[in-house]
Amino acid sequence: MTDLVDAYIDANQQRFIEELKQFMRFPSVSAQQARDKDTRACAAWLMSHFRKLGLEAQLIDIGGQPIVRAGTKGTTSRRVLIYGHYDVQPEDPLGEWKTPPFEPTIRDGILYGRGATDDKGQLFAHVKAVESLLQTEGKLPCEVLFLLEGEEESGGDALPRYVTQAREELTCDAVIISDSTMYDADTPAITNGLRGILAFEFTVKGPDSDVHSGAYGGAVANPAMVLAQILAACVAPDGRILIPHFYDAVAPLEDWEREDFRRLAFNDEALTRELNVPRLHGEAGYETLERLWSRPTFEVNGIFGGYQGQRSKTIIPASATAKISARLVPHQDPAKTRDLIFKHLHAVCPDTVRLEISEFGMSPPVLFDVSTPVIRAAEEALRKGFGHEAVFIRCGGSIPVVSTFVEQLGCPVVLMGFGLDSDHPHGPNEHFSLDSFCRGTKAAGHLLRTI
Amino acid sequence: MTDLVDAYIDANQQRFIEELKQFMRFPSVSAQQARDKDTRACAAWLMSHFRKLGLEAQLIDIGGQPIVRAGTKGTTSRRVLIYGHYDVQPEDPLGEWKTPPFEPTIRDGILYGRGATDDKGQLFAHVKAVESLLQTEGKLPCEVLFLLEGEEESGGDALPRYVTQAREELTCDAVIISDSTMYDADTPAITNGLRGILAFEFTVKGPDSDVHSGAYGGAVANPAMVLAQILAACVAPDGRILIPHFYDAVAPLEDWEREDFRRLAFNDEALTRELNVPRLHGEAGYETLERLWSRPTFEVNGIFGGYQGQRSKTIIPASATAKISARLVPHQDPAKTRDLIFKHLHAVCPDTVRLEISEFGMSPPVLFDVSTPVIRAAEEALRKGFGHEAVFIRCGGSIPVVSTFVEQLGCPVVLMGFGLDSDHPHGPNEHFSLDSFCRGTKAAGHLLRTI
Repeated sequence: MTDLVDAYIDANQQRFIEELKQFMRFPSVSAQQARDKDTRACAAWLMSHFRKLGLEAQLIDIGGQPIVRAGTKGTTSRRVLIYGHYDVQPEDPLGEWKTPPFEPTIRDGILYGRGATDDKGQLFAHVKAVESLLQTEGKLPCEVLFLLEGEEESGGDALPRYVTQAREELTCDAVIISDSTMYDADTPAITNGLRGILAFEFTVKGPDSDVHSGAYGGAVANPAMVLAQILAACVAPDGRILIPHFYDAVAPLEDWEREDFRRLAFNDEALTRELNVPRLHGEAGYETLERLWSRPTFEVNGIFGGYQGQRSKTIIPASATAKISARLVPHQDPAKTRDLIFKHLHAVCPDTVRLEISEFGMSPPVLFDVSTPVIRAAEEALRKGFGHEAVFIRCGGSIPVVSTFVEQLGCPVVLMGFGLDSDHPHGPNEHFSLDSFCRGTKAAGHLLRTI
Repeated sequence: MTDLVDAYIDANQQRFIEELKQFMRFPSVSAQQARDKDTRACAAWLMSHFRKLGLEAQLIDIGGQPIVRAGTKGTTSRRVLIYGHYDVQPEDPLGEWKTPPFEPTIRDGILYGRGATDDKGQLFAHVKAVESLLQTEGKLPCEVLFLLEGEEESGGDALPRYVTQAREELTCDAVIISDSTMYDADTPAITNGLRGILAFEFTVKGPDSDVHSGAYGGAVANPAMVLAQILAACVAPDGRILIPHFYDAVAPLEDWEREDFRRLAFNDEALTRELNVPRLHGEAGYETLERLWSRPTFEVNGIFGGYQGQRSKTIIPASATAKISARLVPHQDPAKTRDLIFKHLHAVCPDTVRLEISEFGMSPPVLFDVSTPVIRAAEEALRKGFGHEAVFIRCGGSIPVVSTFVEQLGCPVVLMGFGLDSDHPHGPNEHFSLDSFCRGTKAAGHLLRTI
């Protein structure tokens, strides 16, 4: 039996695509002030689009780019918040685009253009799902509240500020976000874990200025060598982090989690080729997906000190610096982990140099219980929309807005992405499969009915 | 009984100083093409000055700045080659000079100006010693051949090329060089050892480009961390170099050498203050002078990779590089030592990355036997000139021209400096003690009589 909502989605697919193309023509690049007018026009277009669909909609201006807030009541008291962002990444390198980034173009069932997958295409699936439900059933099965921000790509804080200040009023049963990926083109996925992050740099200071390595070499500590020795005292060649108690709070993988990861049959060889490295590497005793999704890291993001020019300059550098970011997993507390790391740095740094540390912020890891009714509903919705079982995946990166929702609203968050890593979300020729758009719209509709 | 030559030097000191000031007024900055005319004019002035003293003199032009060659026969067949350089360092930072760098000025018995100590003042002492001997005794006690180059401060190769091509004709009994320092203002010194050098860089290469530290952190080796681990596998925190067989060829200090070093009562505290470091550091088990003069080093001159900007960027760098120079001591062979180091780098580098090494050249260590007649003559000459016993010192740096003389002419080289490290040889307000100039001139005269 054909579902009426699905049928409506199929019947109106061409119009949905034309509307999405309209949406994508706004060069809403939030990082570029010169495009503020376009970004605002994009938000206004969204607002009026919501109004045409029968939702109450408004622009919320609390500094930065406006937040589009739109909602309508449902037949039950359940309430779902749908998050997305209408701003996009800058389009450079412009020369590498096959068709202009803000002139959406379809080739072989793929929609090309900036924002196609990140995040205009993905969020629009939810908008069209709401339209389809309203047109088919007259009313939504639950109350829906869209919060679509315009600063995701430029690190603005309007949304977290708004969520924090309006938390009482935003209370809901679930937050739905489609700004991530499927497992592969046919396998929908729910992202149930994100790593946290902790970023800082440390500088090893020696002599007041660079000194001659002949005249002084052997008499004084070399800050770049001390830096290297400190780093080597933080991570062993086998990938184990050597900071005392660093792993104490790390939740070991359950057997069923390991099993779930293994079932995804991650392709090590493909990643080796993609990165063009001789061999993958990571903490001993863990497979690649386990390391990426469930194990913390201590990564050097940058390192510098002394002479960087051509050939040779025989100096001992006055100082050397390493920029570090550690990825955190449940149940590592960012502040406690920071304290452990800083304590270790001070402990292993010799008294022949001075150590200075600067902190750049942190965000906690997130792991959702996958046995909750909301997640079960999402699994079912994805199965219905995509015709395939959904899998659970995690993300090695960090999405700070997720922590904001978890902390402020205390409700389950469903991360169900319709994109793929290969969609080039921040690069040239960004694209989105129209098939995923259609199936994602159906999944979004089913979710509102079952959540 | 007053020595007649010493008396001549005392009597003519004011004129000597005026002539030295004339010499110093040429801005013979060899590194600056715009000053080539001045540099050449300086060489021409020297040549005509030698001719006035009765020496045969010529400019040797074999590309680069001219070499001033001047000589005269002696009463014996012994022949001494005196090396020096008439070119000087650039004068910047000009604003920090109290009096203009090329307007030599005397304050409190100190002559200020570029080249005062490095090397115009020091070499001119030998010129004036030759004049004093000729004026007093009519003929020199030995044949003297000056070779004064104009590319020492700019790394030119005219002199080594000339010495190599004219080696037969340049045969001599000793080379005398005054382009170094005394031990302190009252203690003359003979530098009997120089460390060699070996410079290279190595790069650890990972992914083709920087990759996201969230999406890939834990799956792939971090080139900056591998670089640090490799460096830490080269030098232990206690300063010992960990490269297998690195110390095999190192000549241990003789007890009398240790004793000689200790007698110099090196002031660790003064160096700690000078460098503004919390504490000195070096290979465990050796005192500061032992480490500086008789032990090899493995120094990082520069280190870089990944993000170096403000705050944080969450990437795994595509590559990371360390620039290294190792100082070598007798009897380390530069080529063999290079092979040991490179073998170790390859051995400790994991197969998860690619290692690339570039070599920047090498020069061997030098250690002169201090019991030879030539050195004994220099000791005596310094005692007579300065009224104090000379001490033997070494130099942590490398003077490539010394190796050239040793290799090409196979004769003893006497390094007897009249300057001090505190003369600011390459900095603003370079200066030279007129007392040292006078005493150095006397020592140079005594040396020609006793060598």
